[in-house]
Amino acid sequence: MATIDFWFSIGSTYSYLTVMRLPEVQRTTGATFRWRAFNVRRVMIEQNNIPFRDKPVKAAYMWRDIARRAERYGLSPKLPAPYPLQGLVLANQIATLGAEQGWVEAYTRATYRRWFEAGEPAGEEPNISASLGEIGCDPAAVHAAAQSERIADALDAATDEAMALGIFGTPTFAVGREIFWGDDRLDDAILWQTGAIR
Amino acid sequence: MATIDFWFSIGSTYSYLTVMRLPEVQRTTGATFRWRAFNVRRVMIEQNNIPFRDKPVKAAYMWRDIARRAERYGLSPKLPAPYPLQGLVLANQIATLGAEQGWVEAYTRATYRRWFEAGEPAGEEPNISASLGEIGCDPAAVHAAAQSERIADALDAATDEAMALGIFGTPTFAVGREIFWGDDRLDDAILWQTGAIR
Repeated sequence: MATIDFWFSIGSTYSYLTVMRLPEVQRTTGATFRWRAFNVRRVMIEQNNIPFRDKPVKAAYMWRDIARRAERYGLSPKLPAPYPLQGLVLANQIATLGAEQGWVEAYTRATYRRWFEAGEPAGEEPNISASLGEIGCDPAAVHAAAQSERIADALDAATDEAMALGIFGTPTFAVGREIFWGDDRLDDAILWQTGAIR
Repeated sequence: MATIDFWFSIGSTYSYLTVMRLPEVQRTTGATFRWRAFNVRRVMIEQNNIPFRDKPVKAAYMWRDIARRAERYGLSPKLPAPYPLQGLVLANQIATLGAEQGWVEAYTRATYRRWFEAGEPAGEEPNISASLGEIGCDPAAVHAAAQSERIADALDAATDEAMALGIFGTPTFAVGREIFWGDDRLDDAILWQTGAIR
């Protein structure tokens, strides 16, 4: 089976659900995923798309909806989690480095768990060092490398690539040029990829 | 089984899916619905929530997502449908009258079908008269009654009631004070109502 591109930004609330349940989805469906970090904040600013920050009623629903879905997936978040993230760019620069070095999935899951289950914002201390230490990375070395111009450029290039696909939010699943937005469209993306829907 | 409140505004794009598939959902699940029209545009203006009008990338995805879902439900819309609707308020005043007189569901389905499948905007001619005629109503009499102060007030009161429930968009399904937003949360609302999820 071909691989589905999982476009995410650490900083997205609904992506918590996807990040945490993807191992189980892989196990039960055989689907495989390529983890693609991008900067959803830049996309949203360019597209004048502010989903929650100035919309308290919609934001309250979002947390309730995540709580219900999390319970179904056997997750135990402490909600609402700190939002929005100050360190969104750094968090995703680290993920970009992790994709090069093979630990993007482990890091992203570790940092989301601390953010959503311990109330420590991703992209800042103590979350960064604790998450990296937990997965066997050297926090100081990663921190420096992730802020290099090369990694910053790589994240920007990935963000451009996401926008070229028509991506405007996260999580988004891409099967070729067909995109599926939202944790609740993961099943559709898998069905599409297998040819079960068209 | 208790009745689920189906809060809708004629003018919502995703509500097309719900409006068209609800008979089948009722048949297969035994769920019943109370059709509650409200003015989602007033809610969105008050909450600074502009989902699509100034967001072309997100809007393009919305039409594609509706097309995929429509195909799954056996529907054949011509997309994109005319959007946004100029006659949103009148369309929902007619629905409010229809709820009093017992034809809200038939009218809403007829007007959505013409809007999404024949390209005739709901809330204006020829859609209004054709939809009302099709379901056996007198278009002139309904048109006059729907614009009465009493019906306008009833729609406003329903909109206030929706906002008091925390509703910010449509379709929304309410089970008591628990709300589920989006055609893709209809299954969750039914599961919640039966006690299968909590």
